[in-house]
Amino acid sequence: MKETVMIQTHSRVEMIDITAKIQEVIDRSGVRDGICVVFVPHTTAAVTINENADPDVRNDIMAHLGEMIPPRRSFLHVEGNSDSHIKVSLTGSSGTVMVDEGRLDLGTWQSIFFCEFDGPRNRRCTVKVIGEKDVPHS
Amino acid sequence: MKETVMIQTHSRVEMIDITAKIQEVIDRSGVRDGICVVFVPHTTAAVTINENADPDVRNDIMAHLGEMIPPRRSFLHVEGNSDSHIKVSLTGSSGTVMVDEGRLDLGTWQSIFFCEFDGPRNRRCTVKVIGEKDVPHS
Amino acid sequence: MKETVMIQTHSRVEMIDITAKIQEVIDRSGVRDGICVVFVPHTTAAVTINENADPDVRNDIMAHLGEMIPPRRSFLHVEGNSDSHIKVSLTGSSGTVMVDEGRLDLGTWQSIFFCEFDGPRNRRCTVKVIGEKDVPHS
Repeated sequence: MKETVMIQTHSRVEMIDITAKIQEVIDRSGVRDGICVVFVPHTTAAVTINENADPDVRNDIMAHLGEMIPPRRSFLHVEGNSDSHIKVSLTGSSGTVMVDEGRLDLGTWQSIFFCEFDGPRNRRCTVKVIGEKDVPHS
Repeated sequence: MKETVMIQTHSRVEMIDITAKIQEVIDRSGVRDGICVVFVPHTTAAVTINENADPDVRNDIMAHLGEMIPPRRSFLHVEGNSDSHIKVSLTGSSGTVMVDEGRLDLGTWQSIFFCEFDGPRNRRCTVKVIGEKDVPHS
Repeated sequence: MKETVMIQTHSRVEMIDITAKIQEVIDRSGVRDGICVVFVPHTTAAVTINENADPDVRNDIMAHLGEMIPPRRSFLHVEGNSDSHIKVSLTGSSGTVMVDEGRLDLGTWQSIFFCEFDGPRNRRCTVKVIGEKDVPHS
């Protein structure tokens, strides 16, 4: 019932639409009615739901977060990626979406995005679908 | 088991207490012990849990978010509401609260708020209650 | 199935690793496969998942949040802790983690942290574990 989805990121900060991959996990689960939890097991990457139509929305989100939370010389953490960790705690490590008739119950303009804050890296997220399956007719 | 709650907002930014409406969904579900997920299917509105006693808490939250994330000429998204999208990814599109003896298990001062970041609009949220119902005595 | 975990905080802002306490609740629940929801019933404290290895990550997170959201004379809420309330709506009142073979399914460097934003205080969080228990062999 739990699956791992692999994600390859390509720059330091990036939002990648993973909606189709999550839907495939739901399809394989057979759940028709329930909830789907997406969890990011990294501390410099997160998950969010936002607009999928205009890529400039993602560009504006990442650019503004970068101005609000820049890499700073005064940060104590020696790896130099405290900005990435801070962005994770504001964006969140998990997301919950309902499943209705076997489909992610997202709004018209919504997609689920994997948020890379310290890439490029090989990343993953875990997906769990909880709910009721169709009972086959006998 | 899933219900849609309609919300009419009245200004560009606004926090509306939807706790009573969510409790009504739980009442109708019959679930006594479980969790309740609230999901906002919009990309310029969100959900949060915060203080309900003093309305100035909401005023301060919305005013400070507006200063941290103002509408900016430099944003690329031509609709001019990138600030609203950014606020959504920081606040979150879903909230999970426990249900205990048929009641939302909130703290004394907590309410569930629908966060309008680009109103006024006709909005909605979806509510799902998962858990065990009372078994009637025979 | 729901348990309350008590937490004593020691300063105004502080991140306390509560992973071991949450794992104990899962152990007592007997759930092997499912999800665990952690909920903070306060309006000036929150929950987040982040790095546990270097304490300077927590120090940088709390210091930067304090600069982004300082206590301000212009805030209307007379208790003087609007900064704490704002931090809660950005960090979040709940967290969801999967349970796999009876263990919290966290990444290598992840812990669950209780975020105190207006301490020191006696605090608590509620924990609910949903899922399937082991069926004992007959």
